[in-house]
Amino acid sequence: MSILVVGSVAYDAVSTPTASLKQSLGGSATFFSLAASYFAPVSVVGVVGEDFRWEDLHMLEEHGIDTGGLVKRPGKTFRWVGEYGQDMNEAHTLDTQLNVFANFKPVLPAAARKPPFLFLANIDPDLQQAVLGQLQDRPRLVGGDTMNFWIQGKGDSLAKVIGAVGTLLINEGEIRLLTGEPNLVKAARQVLRQGPGMVVVKRGEYGAICFTKDDVFATPAYPLETVVDPTGAGDTFAGGFMGYLAATGDLSIASVRRAMIVGSVMASFTVEDFGPARLQSATAQEIQERYREFWKLTYFDGNGERPLPRRTSVGA
Amino acid sequence: MSILVVGSVAYDAVSTPTASLKQSLGGSATFFSLAASYFAPVSVVGVVGEDFRWEDLHMLEEHGIDTGGLVKRPGKTFRWVGEYGQDMNEAHTLDTQLNVFANFKPVLPAAARKPPFLFLANIDPDLQQAVLGQLQDRPRLVGGDTMNFWIQGKGDSLAKVIGAVGTLLINEGEIRLLTGEPNLVKAARQVLRQGPGMVVVKRGEYGAICFTKDDVFATPAYPLETVVDPTGAGDTFAGGFMGYLAATGDLSIASVRRAMIVGSVMASFTVEDFGPARLQSATAQEIQERYREFWKLTYFDGNGERPLPRRTSVGA
Repeated sequence: MSILVVGSVAYDAVSTPTASLKQSLGGSATFFSLAASYFAPVSVVGVVGEDFRWEDLHMLEEHGIDTGGLVKRPGKTFRWVGEYGQDMNEAHTLDTQLNVFANFKPVLPAAARKPPFLFLANIDPDLQQAVLGQLQDRPRLVGGDTMNFWIQGKGDSLAKVIGAVGTLLINEGEIRLLTGEPNLVKAARQVLRQGPGMVVVKRGEYGAICFTKDDVFATPAYPLETVVDPTGAGDTFAGGFMGYLAATGDLSIASVRRAMIVGSVMASFTVEDFGPARLQSATAQEIQERYREFWKLTYFDGNGERPLPRRTSVGA
Repeated sequence: MSILVVGSVAYDAVSTPTASLKQSLGGSATFFSLAASYFAPVSVVGVVGEDFRWEDLHMLEEHGIDTGGLVKRPGKTFRWVGEYGQDMNEAHTLDTQLNVFANFKPVLPAAARKPPFLFLANIDPDLQQAVLGQLQDRPRLVGGDTMNFWIQGKGDSLAKVIGAVGTLLINEGEIRLLTGEPNLVKAARQVLRQGPGMVVVKRGEYGAICFTKDDVFATPAYPLETVVDPTGAGDTFAGGFMGYLAATGDLSIASVRRAMIVGSVMASFTVEDFGPARLQSATAQEIQERYREFWKLTYFDGNGERPLPRRTSVGA
């Protein structure tokens, strides 16, 4: 089944302790759609400026991404300037230039109003609501993301979006801010009471954890010796996650667990280079191999058939 | 096989955002030996003051812990005063009173000089070296821990200890400080080059990760709705980890992976109440159940027999 993503397409300027890149293709919709494209047909709705490079559009299309909903407007493409410190866990935003994104009003092409899978990437919750209002059919799954800026500035509108999505994908710090609850399990339960059937909390280098009413699944991130630029890892995770679910059409808990690993696999490629450079060059074989690496990373014999050793005198 | 642990026994005063306890049994050797006692015979070498409560000694002995090496000296028991903020991840030390610990010189009883398993808990590396010097046989496994204070103040002595242990168990922030390397994989590889065959990095609420030359295993921590007091969780992890290995005598990678889960299981009990209150009341059945909960938390179908869906046109 196919996925529609509505989000940002950007040029990022990123500095890390060891390197920097001035004009790096970025934006939530970019990372999401590239990651998802390995598994399912993806259409992107967004806006770019006149400076958007032909080769970037070409690269997206080479990945089979339908860019018919990616409109070009007079002006410059959305621009984010950020830097990372030694720990690489948190980006510090130095500058944000909305440019053509300032007047972005997402319009779903007529053919895109019945998407079986929809991802509302991190944009103004008013726009996320506007997208939901254009749907002609209820999708099988709507995923949504947000960020501190909207949690603090547009809480009421965001609450409506959260009430309407099936899966909220959100950073650990953001879910704590959203709920005012420092305990992650309580915070997730609180969001589940607001509507979503599933909450996926992204924890950067510590992996991700997925809560439903009856299930919890956690995975560490892939331990990498080379982390160049974490920008876009969360959106990449979401793309791999939803891409897998759309490809299989299977929303069972077993499938969601595999989707969590696929998201983690795709994110592990993204952080290995600036922008989407590594992600876009991943091969199906590399993806399959890294999926298996995750299994080796986390597997233990634990299905209870072998009882733990115990001293009979203690804790009986 | 049995384990000898050399470390601190303390009374802690702990404050959290919701509660506080003034005279809580603590110390690295306490948490370690309680956790290990569920699996293997444990002897503890340490020092307490005249104020050490009979009921605390009794509780340790009820867990089958050999306290013959726990000597009582004139003065007060080592005391740590700390508090936790909202995130519960980092303790802030408000006061440390060494008391009888100031003149502690560990002496292994004659019968304890050939321990098959030895754990050098977080104490002065000079003392850790003194313990190693009293051994009459090379143990099957020596585990060691340390902390920022010794990394910064006694680096040379600590380097000798690290060169002599088989497994270093250390916090994430501490291994970064120890190696000067922000990347965890590189930091672990650096320690592995210094002697240990295994490095276990404790990541608090994010779980733990184990590196050997040829293997990496990572586990998330158990997501708990109630975290009362994280004090001692790392030592508890070490106790469960080494306790399992000593009980089975099996140092294979498969066994080490199970030991990582057992350590995580035991630590998940410790954080549920102040001091060792919850850990000491755990039953063998609860431990077995939570082990199985870890399996449910992390299991996914990933051994590669089911290929991932792929779009033939992308990433071929």
